[in-house]
Amino acid sequence: MRPWKTLERRVLLSRKPWLEVGEEKIELPDGRVIDGYPWIISRDFALVVALAADDRVVAIRSYKHGARRVQLELPAGYIEQGEQPLDTAKRELNEETGYAADEWSSLGAFVIHGNYGIGTEHIYLARGARRVSEPDHGDLEELEVTLRSMRELLAAVERGEMMMLSSVAALALAALRLR
Amino acid sequence: MRPWKTLERRVLLSRKPWLEVGEEKIELPDGRVIDGYPWIISRDFALVVALAADDRVVAIRSYKHGARRVQLELPAGYIEQGEQPLDTAKRELNEETGYAADEWSSLGAFVIHGNYGIGTEHIYLARGARRVSEPDHGDLEELEVTLRSMRELLAAVERGEMMMLSSVAALALAALRLR
Repeated sequence: MRPWKTLERRVLLSRKPWLEVGEEKIELPDGRVIDGYPWIISRDFALVVALAADDRVVAIRSYKHGARRVQLELPAGYIEQGEQPLDTAKRELNEETGYAADEWSSLGAFVIHGNYGIGTEHIYLARGARRVSEPDHGDLEELEVTLRSMRELLAAVERGEMMMLSSVAALALAALRLR
Repeated sequence: MRPWKTLERRVLLSRKPWLEVGEEKIELPDGRVIDGYPWIISRDFALVVALAADDRVVAIRSYKHGARRVQLELPAGYIEQGEQPLDTAKRELNEETGYAADEWSSLGAFVIHGNYGIGTEHIYLARGARRVSEPDHGDLEELEVTLRSMRELLAAVERGEMMMLSSVAALALAALRLR
């Protein structure tokens, strides 16, 4: 089971720091050469499943342009240059929801797209979350903070009301960790 | 909580049917206009958590170029034009692993990227999976079929050995459904 070799790599589109797209000429382990295999680099991000009092999850209701819909999601944001993913998670939780938490643990870091890469999602579980300030996120989106039980959010996933893969993966991993 | 309006939409890069990238001029609900907001369209895909005898999951060991690593994943593939996602899941399970199953249920359909879209992952749970043929996938990747218990695969997620978000989300949702 051997990795592919990258023989050439071209940038086709650059919208840094948001997005870069290109293609590679790759050599497979059996010697076949494939030209024009795409790659995409978007920004890595961190996402947090934060548990407040009564184990209610700090969720967000928001329009997401990627889905073209208003839906439920979890606090998340892009990792700034030089920032540690855990610090991003803490910052975004506070900026987007006004919450802070003391107990943090990692639920893993996962690559967004199997073929093209795109970036990495860093997922955290935070316990003991409490409101400490007003939200002040500066995002383009309108955000409405809403506390929901894990059971309610898993039901929302089944109804298609939480539909971003990034939030759903994190919620399911957190539910498994907590059971 | 209102959606954004798309005022203009431009294609910047076309590698159909694999990939199309562009940008939009959007109007936010508060009237602000943002130009150059990226969008990405890649192909929708279906992925299956298939349970064989003794509730072992039909997994795959493979090199994934998106992660630049050999890792564990679940059977999956792009939806062909005109194909129903469930049919894709059945086809890919058989092509990649040689397995078939009779009992299928949906675990949901999720958008890959909150901001840029990219595509939708359709996730299925299949029970009663059994080997019916030799794998014959024609993928660029070398694939090694491996049966693992749910517990082993969740441990692999914790160790970073299953690292594609698409597989991890599906595995976690299936584990919740089965508990």
